Amino acid sequence: MSKFTIAIHGGAGTILKSEITAKQEADYKNALEVALTCGYQVLEKGGSALDAVRAAVVSLEDIDLFNAGKGSVFASDGSQEMDAAIMDGKNLDAGAVSAVKNIRNPIELAFAVMTLSDHVMLNGRGAEDFARLHNIKSEPDDYFFSALRFAQLKQAQQKGEMMLDHRSLNPNKKFGTVGAVACDAQGNIAAATSTGGMTNKKWGRVGDSPIIGAGTYANNQTCAISCTGHGEPFIRSVTAYDVSCLMEYKNLSLQDAMHIVVHDKLLKLHGEGGMIGVDAKGNAAMMFNSEGMYRAMKNNEGVKEISIYK
Amino acid sequence: MSKFTIAIHGGAGTILKSEITAKQEADYKNALEVALTCGYQVLEKGGSALDAVRAAVVSLEDIDLFNAGKGSVFASDGSQEMDAAIMDGKNLDAGAVSAVKNIRNPIELAFAVMTLSDHVMLNGRGAEDFARLHNIKSEPDDYFFSALRFAQLKQAQQKGEMMLDHRSLNPNKKFGTVGAVACDAQGNIAAATSTGGMTNKKWGRVGDSPIIGAGTYANNQTCAISCTGHGEPFIRSVTAYDVSCLMEYKNLSLQDAMHIVVHDKLLKLHGEGGMIGVDAKGNAAMMFNSEGMYRAMKNNEGVKEISIYK
Repeated sequence: MSKFTIAIHGGAGTILKSEITAKQEADYKNALEVALTCGYQVLEKGGSALDAVRAAVVSLEDIDLFNAGKGSVFASDGSQEMDAAIMDGKNLDAGAVSAVKNIRNPIELAFAVMTLSDHVMLNGRGAEDFARLHNIKSEPDDYFFSALRFAQLKQAQQKGEMMLDHRSLNPNKKFGTVGAVACDAQGNIAAATSTGGMTNKKWGRVGDSPIIGAGTYANNQTCAISCTGHGEPFIRSVTAYDVSCLMEYKNLSLQDAMHIVVHDKLLKLHGEGGMIGVDAKGNAAMMFNSEGMYRAMKNNEGVKEISIYK
Repeated sequence: MSKFTIAIHGGAGTILKSEITAKQEADYKNALEVALTCGYQVLEKGGSALDAVRAAVVSLEDIDLFNAGKGSVFASDGSQEMDAAIMDGKNLDAGAVSAVKNIRNPIELAFAVMTLSDHVMLNGRGAEDFARLHNIKSEPDDYFFSALRFAQLKQAQQKGEMMLDHRSLNPNKKFGTVGAVACDAQGNIAAATSTGGMTNKKWGRVGDSPIIGAGTYANNQTCAISCTGHGEPFIRSVTAYDVSCLMEYKNLSLQDAMHIVVHDKLLKLHGEGGMIGVDAKGNAAMMFNSEGMYRAMKNNEGVKEISIYK
């Protein structure tokens, strides 16, 4: 049995201690701890990395603190369109959905796409039809409504801008996404990412989260990665797979490969954000070039961290 | 002034000489020659690789022989949903659209996304709204209707299967996509890919064509790649960017990198199809692991090829 590890994130961006109350900080840390535990317990019972990342992301989707699932932000038309992706490092199987509405847990729909269809990526109404066919849980609009999110939409519309932020009523940049990566006791790794997109987003914009290779990637030979940040530079850099290639082709460690991508390659494209990663030996890393990233990790050698700021 | 080159493809798959009439073969080769010339003339006049790949792909979208633009196949609901992507190797700018209807030239919409929006990927109705805003040419359903394509839909529906094929009324597999890559006299490279997807496709399936890194990628430091094939393995392998990483991190030539991806990595995932590529020195390669690939290339040193079979 090898070392097992899970890491999760709840988004990155301009997250400053001076702008968060003690109560808010405690709420975020508590939510991260709950999600971390959901995933870790799967690993502790001998479950797979795949099931661990699903459990952690479902937990993050089920609360309204993060921009994914229940906490998704509003697009410009007042709808909430969500994206998600999951990848299994054991066999490179992958599933993704983009622009789905009313799905309680988009990550579970992405998992269904991976396991129950011949496809990798399903989109929009078609993906929702697929969800109904496989009894993926849906929720009415009310479930996803939040007064804070709606105020964010109105604020963004007044300013005539899109906000990637997931809770800023102040001018901070926060990239709301949630994600998890895990290495199980069998040495299999997996990655999962879920997001509600950008406040006031228009034109059916798709970010990096559901793009295999950009926001999400997993390969037992190298790493499992889940990203959060300004989606466009992450797509153009093929960010997650770049970490994998630096490990596979240049024999870099997870830590060194992530460092090059987050602190050099992404910055050259003005790409703000971060990522979490694990390798198949149970090593984990959490890295970002923004002010903060909601993040947590735990392994079976007693290492545990729950952090927000730099 | 360096060597300038263009390469194009019109899809790959089980394309057998025994099943194509002399007239059909002449039609395909003529269409490839016309598109090749459209792109080459841009380069010859000192134009950019970006404008050359646009011109070539528009030419391929405007005829009904290939599964893109006018020749797009029917999805299961009788609609024609198209995907396209374009990338500029000079600055890693990229644009992509998925699941758009009634757009005459999806590659021009992808170019507009790249040049006129802050985004990389737009989807569905939102992308169509963006097209209207920027006066991207649309066409009525009639423009896209073809009796052959409709017969393919009916045949696929009777068999209860999706067909990736772009013209088979026989049981061949043909992956209908068009694409172009070019290196201009300034040493800039670009890639473009456009597709009508799969006959009888359901659930809003998205293939590799509009995914930056999978079906389309360009970077002056390495290569410009446009893929055609069974989209799912291409997404899971992050195919186009893998070629780039093998060049950047292992110092392989374009030819050697493409060989590893097409004849080793893709086959391990049962990925059938091929790709065309150029590097910034004007070298070009066209490679596939299927029976055939509609393809053509031309450079300013007198090399010219128009081929279909192995």
